[in-house]
Amino acid sequence: MIHFRNDYSVAAHPAVLEALARFNDERCPGYGRDPFCEEAAATIRKLCQAPDAAVHFLSGGTQVNKTALGAFLRPYEAAVAAESGHICGHETGSIEHNGHKILTCPAEDGKLTPAMLEAVCTGQTGEHAVVPRLAYISNTTEVGTVYTLAELRSLHDACIRLGLLLYCDGARLGAAITAPGSDAGFADYAVLCDAFTIGGTKNGLLFGEALVITNSALQPYFRHCMKQQGATLAKGWVFGIQFSAILRDNLYLELAARANGLAGELTQGLQALGVPLLSASPSNQVFPLLPDGVVERLAEDFTFEIQQPSRDGRTGIRLVTGWYSSREDVDTFLQRLEVLLK
Amino acid sequence: MIHFRNDYSVAAHPAVLEALARFNDERCPGYGRDPFCEEAAATIRKLCQAPDAAVHFLSGGTQVNKTALGAFLRPYEAAVAAESGHICGHETGSIEHNGHKILTCPAEDGKLTPAMLEAVCTGQTGEHAVVPRLAYISNTTEVGTVYTLAELRSLHDACIRLGLLLYCDGARLGAAITAPGSDAGFADYAVLCDAFTIGGTKNGLLFGEALVITNSALQPYFRHCMKQQGATLAKGWVFGIQFSAILRDNLYLELAARANGLAGELTQGLQALGVPLLSASPSNQVFPLLPDGVVERLAEDFTFEIQQPSRDGRTGIRLVTGWYSSREDVDTFLQRLEVLLK
Amino acid sequence: MIHFRNDYSVAAHPAVLEALARFNDERCPGYGRDPFCEEAAATIRKLCQAPDAAVHFLSGGTQVNKTALGAFLRPYEAAVAAESGHICGHETGSIEHNGHKILTCPAEDGKLTPAMLEAVCTGQTGEHAVVPRLAYISNTTEVGTVYTLAELRSLHDACIRLGLLLYCDGARLGAAITAPGSDAGFADYAVLCDAFTIGGTKNGLLFGEALVITNSALQPYFRHCMKQQGATLAKGWVFGIQFSAILRDNLYLELAARANGLAGELTQGLQALGVPLLSASPSNQVFPLLPDGVVERLAEDFTFEIQQPSRDGRTGIRLVTGWYSSREDVDTFLQRLEVLLK
Amino acid sequence: MIHFRNDYSVAAHPAVLEALARFNDERCPGYGRDPFCEEAAATIRKLCQAPDAAVHFLSGGTQVNKTALGAFLRPYEAAVAAESGHICGHETGSIEHNGHKILTCPAEDGKLTPAMLEAVCTGQTGEHAVVPRLAYISNTTEVGTVYTLAELRSLHDACIRLGLLLYCDGARLGAAITAPGSDAGFADYAVLCDAFTIGGTKNGLLFGEALVITNSALQPYFRHCMKQQGATLAKGWVFGIQFSAILRDNLYLELAARANGLAGELTQGLQALGVPLLSASPSNQVFPLLPDGVVERLAEDFTFEIQQPSRDGRTGIRLVTGWYSSREDVDTFLQRLEVLLK
Repeated sequence: MIHFRNDYSVAAHPAVLEALARFNDERCPGYGRDPFCEEAAATIRKLCQAPDAAVHFLSGGTQVNKTALGAFLRPYEAAVAAESGHICGHETGSIEHNGHKILTCPAEDGKLTPAMLEAVCTGQTGEHAVVPRLAYISNTTEVGTVYTLAELRSLHDACIRLGLLLYCDGARLGAAITAPGSDAGFADYAVLCDAFTIGGTKNGLLFGEALVITNSALQPYFRHCMKQQGATLAKGWVFGIQFSAILRDNLYLELAARANGLAGELTQGLQALGVPLLSASPSNQVFPLLPDGVVERLAEDFTFEIQQPSRDGRTGIRLVTGWYSSREDVDTFLQRLEVLLK
Repeated sequence: MIHFRNDYSVAAHPAVLEALARFNDERCPGYGRDPFCEEAAATIRKLCQAPDAAVHFLSGGTQVNKTALGAFLRPYEAAVAAESGHICGHETGSIEHNGHKILTCPAEDGKLTPAMLEAVCTGQTGEHAVVPRLAYISNTTEVGTVYTLAELRSLHDACIRLGLLLYCDGARLGAAITAPGSDAGFADYAVLCDAFTIGGTKNGLLFGEALVITNSALQPYFRHCMKQQGATLAKGWVFGIQFSAILRDNLYLELAARANGLAGELTQGLQALGVPLLSASPSNQVFPLLPDGVVERLAEDFTFEIQQPSRDGRTGIRLVTGWYSSREDVDTFLQRLEVLLK
Repeated sequence: MIHFRNDYSVAAHPAVLEALARFNDERCPGYGRDPFCEEAAATIRKLCQAPDAAVHFLSGGTQVNKTALGAFLRPYEAAVAAESGHICGHETGSIEHNGHKILTCPAEDGKLTPAMLEAVCTGQTGEHAVVPRLAYISNTTEVGTVYTLAELRSLHDACIRLGLLLYCDGARLGAAITAPGSDAGFADYAVLCDAFTIGGTKNGLLFGEALVITNSALQPYFRHCMKQQGATLAKGWVFGIQFSAILRDNLYLELAARANGLAGELTQGLQALGVPLLSASPSNQVFPLLPDGVVERLAEDFTFEIQQPSRDGRTGIRLVTGWYSSREDVDTFLQRLEVLLK
Repeated sequence: MIHFRNDYSVAAHPAVLEALARFNDERCPGYGRDPFCEEAAATIRKLCQAPDAAVHFLSGGTQVNKTALGAFLRPYEAAVAAESGHICGHETGSIEHNGHKILTCPAEDGKLTPAMLEAVCTGQTGEHAVVPRLAYISNTTEVGTVYTLAELRSLHDACIRLGLLLYCDGARLGAAITAPGSDAGFADYAVLCDAFTIGGTKNGLLFGEALVITNSALQPYFRHCMKQQGATLAKGWVFGIQFSAILRDNLYLELAARANGLAGELTQGLQALGVPLLSASPSNQVFPLLPDGVVERLAEDFTFEIQQPSRDGRTGIRLVTGWYSSREDVDTFLQRLEVLLK
């Protein structure tokens, strides 16, 4: 089987595993209060040019989204998100479990716009409705699209105007930064967002998301919130070791660029075969729409997820590349597809 | 520095790390739906002689306690715990954050008794009070004591009588099972508890607690609850690999027995020096009461936590041994103490 | 000013006030455990032909919806509602505050259908999504429409098939039962719904909603939930006195029918004037679409709410009649409107 | 039966009922945005000499405590209360249901002291524990005792020092202000507390508690929180009418003083008969300790609650007087008791 199911199919990049092994005998204070986490946080602050940012390490995306939004919002405050947003349909209602409504906007390409934020904020009238307080975006989005720097800036400005916080779920931030045509770097996120995450799980770590909180008003007592949510790891230094390893020598962005590159080749191959795509994704997720029979046959040799159930004889599937994917994987897939489509 | 601060000072036992490395390139389905987790769960069911138990893997103690109690209790239901219970003062109110009150019992040795449960249940009268529904115990307890099989049985019977579930936080279950005088094994917990945990973090894993749910009424939808709580790990097979490694060839209990043994030598040495102990602990935590000045001097060479702040010139400290501790650590400590006490 | 703003503009029907005065000196046990509440509950059980129903009295609609859904749902379970449902946008996120997501369906006429339920239930796939568990309907709906008995039956059947509870918010149940063309009575709700409310606040009471729980699995510990939610009134007998007064001699339905009748005259008058209506409402809410300038002038003499903000020069308003409205109110409005529209 | 069961045994004082009847036909904007509530709030601000206080009206004690503490506390923050505090054991865990832990202090006379606050705040160490943030007191307390002005001042000072808010549950504030020896008036509460309630339910209203928020940082969005908690009454003016009626001409304090006076006669009579009291209460609750047999016989003619279950042949009961109690009630009780004790 060749794996295109997701980008968390393989455990850790060798550099990460090697670092874990090298420091395995270290004895550290618990709960992330150790030199490894300090070093990784310092690296992140430097990358982001944000010397005053708070940096926390959590295990996964749902956990970091839930903990952050739970810490940032008051009971009557809501998040605003695209309908396809990860917090809306893929996290088992974890934001609502914390007590907060999510106000959703239809957004075919997965991206929020200032106009959507404006409409949502105008629509909530008075004390019988929740107060929109935080715009949740993900970059890359759930359909692989990427916000440009200009788009991020206009969202930032709209948030200021509307009294919203801007939060970016960066589970695939590496893919977003290195996507062709992308022009926003770590430091831009630090300037434009009140908080954002740098995802490790989908880009080489065993597990781990770094949460960067640049808005100083949101920083106090965050570690209390983490512990209360069950999101504090006893041997927290395991995060520090992993993030230091993956951020060294630009490895994090290199791995993401590599995955994007292979996905780009998939996209080109699909287009050459005349296959329509559900989403114009420049990043490591590709969404071809294929005849049902072809999808069935492909499933014998490749793993992938169904993005859009069968309709009119065609099914939308999701192909995801990772740092561990190879050109051979891509070529094999395209060759097989070409045969099946004949 | 010689470490007695806690039993999660060192990352992973070599066998665990080696297994992680060996299987690093495997490609698995996500979220714990993989063959490694299946194998580890099967091993645990067999150890526990509980073929129908549901086994889940979570990252840490607070997370598993919060997720389990949140799943098991209805909004008006409460947990009952010893005042020293870990959920009472060491988990930042995570149970209450889920909406549940904890009814506490003073218990000098950290152990709940049937009489305490009876008193709590009798004291809650009608709809103006919460309904006690789950007895939370930890074994070993927070003060190192261990429930005997007879004690566990009498708690079990009391719970049946009072309509309570029995939940055992086994963050140090290995230490409990292997403590001198202990007569309850894995299979006893499976029979007597509705759910219990087998702690890995404090006994050789990088991280990980196995939750064993034997009461079938508590099993449905638990994975939904995990995901909602942010407790589902994307690369879940990392749990399976670790638990399989540590449970192989009785390693889990051997490591715990070793830590208990070294703690026992500490206890004997302290008693030989005439040092009073705060708790009659047969397990891997030892709580000597020492002159303030001695404590200060010890802190120059050894790490440990303060258990009881200075009073009348004496401070209670906590010494914890782990699978990585050595007889030399113990001997050095005792020799140094002997000098200081002179 | 003539009032069409809502149906809770006037305090209590004289029969209700008179009863409160008559029994003012009675000394009763607190919290709704008194003979007056028992009598009112018995009357409701008889009306509903539901001798085993549990009947509880709460202060208002948001409170009863929040308390009921909070009691009926487990943490991972969600309600399904029309987008216009009262719990979605008019109750400040109270359902989410209790931890539950609401899955919404677009429904132009405010009514859920079996197909919508089917679609929602099919769309939630596995442990990464919440579990739909309760269909929330309101009758009359927020746009004044009314479910027929056949529609209620088909919803009931769909709920059985899909494993959903059926809950009807009857804040305006009197209006629903007495609307022209309506063929469902109290007893039908008792058969078809797992729980429903009989709204008093909008039909003659100072305040008060009766919750009727016919599904016996949902009955235990409901009073605990009420108390926990702050929904238990110390002098609970005030509910019993009011409900007994309004349910005597069919007064409840007579008042509702009277309000519906006057609204029907409004509708006919509007149609005669060629005014389009936003909703085909047979009940006591009427939604004309009027030129902005006319709306402004009407606001000088009449109270009403804006239902749909100005668009293309026209504004949708909501006119609500109550038991206290008069034919003169209606005639004055229509005459004034006729002049303004010329 | 003569009623000493509680002080909410009778519906409304005649002046309150008369006002409700007089204004029954008024048509008002909903949800407490009406002239009656404005007038009542203005009266309260004047009484409290707190022109900038926010005043809100809620239905009952549990509701106001839950809504206020839920609005004031962040997720990781806790309330501190005496073990006998009403929120601890009489409100079905409503504070915990909102997510907040209550840290309790043993306090035999029901009163918190600065030393208790100090001890609690010192005991919570770091991110593994909740952050004490609000001191909850009730006045009168649950055992009828009353804080003096000096005691309130010292609590206020301790709260400032420790970073705590001071909240006073004034369900029986009238009784506290008019108790013999009491020297704190409305204006003192406004100065010393961040928020407090003026209880109506137990002193002449059908229902209703006024919440006075003097700390301006706690005022924003409180109405959103009320609505979200189901605590906003549609016909809110019913609160305004009642509070205006009871606060006119000092009636509120006169009624409370009258109840205290009758309780004082009970106390003197009990002392004259040599009956020990569980609590030195100068207010409208009296707690005699009586032989079990006597208690049984009294229950034939008088209503009361059991405060302390039978122990060594004696039972503690609670006798409560209200504005509706009479000297005859008291005399009859004492005469009967005298006979029974012979």
